[in-house]
Amino acid sequence: MNIKILGCHSATPRSNSHTTSQLIELKNHLFLIDCGEGTQVRLREEKIKFSRIKNIFISHLHGDHFYGLIGLINTFKLLGRSVDLNIFGPKGIREVIMLQIKLSNSWTNFKLFFHELNNSNSEIIFEDSVVTVSTIPLKHRVYTNGFLFQEKEGLRKINIDKVNKLNIPTCEYENLKNGKDIINDDIKIKNIDLTFPPDKPLSYAFCSDTAFYPQIVKQIKNVDLLYHESTFLNEHKKLASKTLHSTAEQAAEIASLANVGKLLLGHFSTRYKNKLLFIEEANTQFENVDLAKEGETYIL
Amino acid sequence: MNIKILGCHSATPRSNSHTTSQLIELKNHLFLIDCGEGTQVRLREEKIKFSRIKNIFISHLHGDHFYGLIGLINTFKLLGRSVDLNIFGPKGIREVIMLQIKLSNSWTNFKLFFHELNNSNSEIIFEDSVVTVSTIPLKHRVYTNGFLFQEKEGLRKINIDKVNKLNIPTCEYENLKNGKDIINDDIKIKNIDLTFPPDKPLSYAFCSDTAFYPQIVKQIKNVDLLYHESTFLNEHKKLASKTLHSTAEQAAEIASLANVGKLLLGHFSTRYKNKLLFIEEANTQFENVDLAKEGETYIL
Repeated sequence: MNIKILGCHSATPRSNSHTTSQLIELKNHLFLIDCGEGTQVRLREEKIKFSRIKNIFISHLHGDHFYGLIGLINTFKLLGRSVDLNIFGPKGIREVIMLQIKLSNSWTNFKLFFHELNNSNSEIIFEDSVVTVSTIPLKHRVYTNGFLFQEKEGLRKINIDKVNKLNIPTCEYENLKNGKDIINDDIKIKNIDLTFPPDKPLSYAFCSDTAFYPQIVKQIKNVDLLYHESTFLNEHKKLASKTLHSTAEQAAEIASLANVGKLLLGHFSTRYKNKLLFIEEANTQFENVDLAKEGETYIL
Repeated sequence: MNIKILGCHSATPRSNSHTTSQLIELKNHLFLIDCGEGTQVRLREEKIKFSRIKNIFISHLHGDHFYGLIGLINTFKLLGRSVDLNIFGPKGIREVIMLQIKLSNSWTNFKLFFHELNNSNSEIIFEDSVVTVSTIPLKHRVYTNGFLFQEKEGLRKINIDKVNKLNIPTCEYENLKNGKDIINDDIKIKNIDLTFPPDKPLSYAFCSDTAFYPQIVKQIKNVDLLYHESTFLNEHKKLASKTLHSTAEQAAEIASLANVGKLLLGHFSTRYKNKLLFIEEANTQFENVDLAKEGETYIL
């Protein structure tokens, strides 16, 4: 699972700091989370093939997470896209996108499916053989969800040494990978004796924007990577509380409570020049902390 | 009158080519024409003081002229703007902007006035002591206006030599500038004998997007500068006709018919690498042609 940061700043886009957008690559999937103004330019800069994006998840309808979506859809159309596009986001997203398409008389030549969300409890919104995506209800000034990407358990791995020793025919390999016991020379051999367990499925939790909200801990327990917003440092804790954002220390407290593998901080206010202070502050609560950096890919 | 090009490309924004937006500076005014996605970033790059923009004119509701407006309004809000903002644009602009403000619960702390346009005849939409702004109805796939900026005639200029020779007191200067005759030592002196006429008022016509549309010629006759779209070269004349855009030759034909001072071409399709071909083609119809260039200011 790769997480590429297209933008990780809050509020307003600037030349060298872009608002929220991330790409999650997982086997054949390329999911887009959030789409601040200018995301389509960032996608071009990163040389992403637009037609690979089939599912877009929008956390909430504040501009820095959403204003680039209509432009991206319009560019998909201009590029002659024919592949379906699924958009998951808060109730209202359909109305505002369709109104803009109607006013500009720019109907798409591909199918556009809206999956509007208004549940205050977590729900699975996408599932296939590879991954499930669930909402993580967050606490912000408007209805907001984070998203939990959970890889499904893969196939068991064949123990080549044992399989060769027992002369197991290759036509049984698929059965072994799928966990089945087999009969060889009229002897039943247990799957567990010929295979190793599959790799541990990976998980990624995206949580932005949100106030300090320990209710999410149960859901994100033990995820491999947690992206949690830290718009502010503790010196602006009151402002964080007022605007329903988090400080680096609060994000790290969530990471600690949830026992995550690693914490990735983002959604920085542009008021801070020295981003290392976010790490310093977070490290008082949790050790394995990194700063989201635009253009960087985090590999799980 | 200064015209600064923030973006002059069609369709979709890229790292080094931005969609339509221009700033018109005239005495104390700073008018913004069109606002493609990313215009707020271009304004920052050009170090424009946001609060100086009080009037925004939107030609039509296609994304490359309009998708940056909601983000700019939102940033005005975040920066604590208190100055009123006037938005002139096609009917529907109010609904789509207000819907986005409502969905994000991001009400502005400044007054936002919408002036919705749906007249198919030209009308004056802004007027004060310095300038009038009129619509130039254009021919495009959706309701579209160009904008004609006409400076008002300024004050007459005092002929210092004559005024000094006749010992005219300085308290009469204001009267002279305003065209009044004066009485000096009981002798009436005609204004015309003490002043020069004011500078010729300047005019600028912005015409994008539009098919070849000679109906506009009458209205833009003799303007000092005409910005006319030339999305295509003649080799794509059929495509221009189909999409209701113009070629460089057609733009130049309009310039020639209208006897304008200078033609500025823009709204280029990014398919053309060699922009000089636009000049070459336009020069077959009209001599004084320049290419709009992002970041450049054209001074009248």
